[in-house]
Amino acid sequence: MDLEQFVAQSEGHWRSMRSGHSLAFQQFEEVLSEVIIERVNLDDPEVINLLAAHADQKGSPTAPFRMQWRAESDWEPDDPGAVAEGSCVLVPLLSSSTTGVLLRSVGYAEKEQAAGQFSFLADGTFLLTTPYGQSIAEERIWFVAENVRCRSSVLKTSEGSGVLQTSFASEVRRLSS
Amino acid sequence: MDLEQFVAQSEGHWRSMRSGHSLAFQQFEEVLSEVIIERVNLDDPEVINLLAAHADQKGSPTAPFRMQWRAESDWEPDDPGAVAEGSCVLVPLLSSSTTGVLLRSVGYAEKEQAAGQFSFLADGTFLLTTPYGQSIAEERIWFVAENVRCRSSVLKTSEGSGVLQTSFASEVRRLSS
Repeated sequence: MDLEQFVAQSEGHWRSMRSGHSLAFQQFEEVLSEVIIERVNLDDPEVINLLAAHADQKGSPTAPFRMQWRAESDWEPDDPGAVAEGSCVLVPLLSSSTTGVLLRSVGYAEKEQAAGQFSFLADGTFLLTTPYGQSIAEERIWFVAENVRCRSSVLKTSEGSGVLQTSFASEVRRLSS
Repeated sequence: MDLEQFVAQSEGHWRSMRSGHSLAFQQFEEVLSEVIIERVNLDDPEVINLLAAHADQKGSPTAPFRMQWRAESDWEPDDPGAVAEGSCVLVPLLSSSTTGVLLRSVGYAEKEQAAGQFSFLADGTFLLTTPYGQSIAEERIWFVAENVRCRSSVLKTSEGSGVLQTSFASEVRRLSS
């Protein structure tokens, strides 16, 4: 698995079941959401802006994509039907076909732009480590079938010692949209 | 990471948050449980029985251990405080220090005895594939800190094409017991 194959296999419309674990409080979060992943062009204005903001990062921009999500969360006790939605542009900068930097216009752990290091394990698992101001996110994504992928994340304190929360998503491709 | 290091790091008393995803029905399951992992001797009667029942399996018996769990599940709607508990002996049979067969006295997906193939990825992730009568379980366990480990499982149909359910557990070591 290299980055281009990974993005190609990720493209599409996914139905996601996501569980969050808050370790200190032993609280569970459950989120059902729709996720749409689609390629964008290298000359898309959002891609150009993101590259300009991270001009210090090395690597060859390859296979940029947009991720959109729309969630129904049980997390807000005052508003159980609360819908969270968002959109994010991601630009891989390759140092090899399987390693590099991933720029994102909206962060995972914090809302700022972010730049993480990615690589692949031998079985095709995508690994991404992204430092934020107050935390470090470690994400992994692996395909368990052509149309089913799993995504886990671990959020650590910036010092790297404490684990704040974890999450796990099971994503099934919608074959008709 | 080799098998002996993995068992040594797994020994102890863990507090587990586990989420199950039933993909066809989009149902979530949440389970809080205690897990205790402890080494047992190679001449323990349960180890000897398990090896005798799988005499056809090759490999050198190494670092057998017992796993006990006690769960409080939200799964039974009629009995929300239902407690599930169990115990299982596991015997690794090494073909190398990082690959082999894992025998278990009680299966994960089904209650029968089981024998799975294990290996490790470059980052120390433990991978286990176990065929059962009606299904195949693919499990992975990785340490995200010395005292925090993650465990995912994917249950497929025996044909290997359909993904029935997934689960994810975040496990934090109890430093005082």
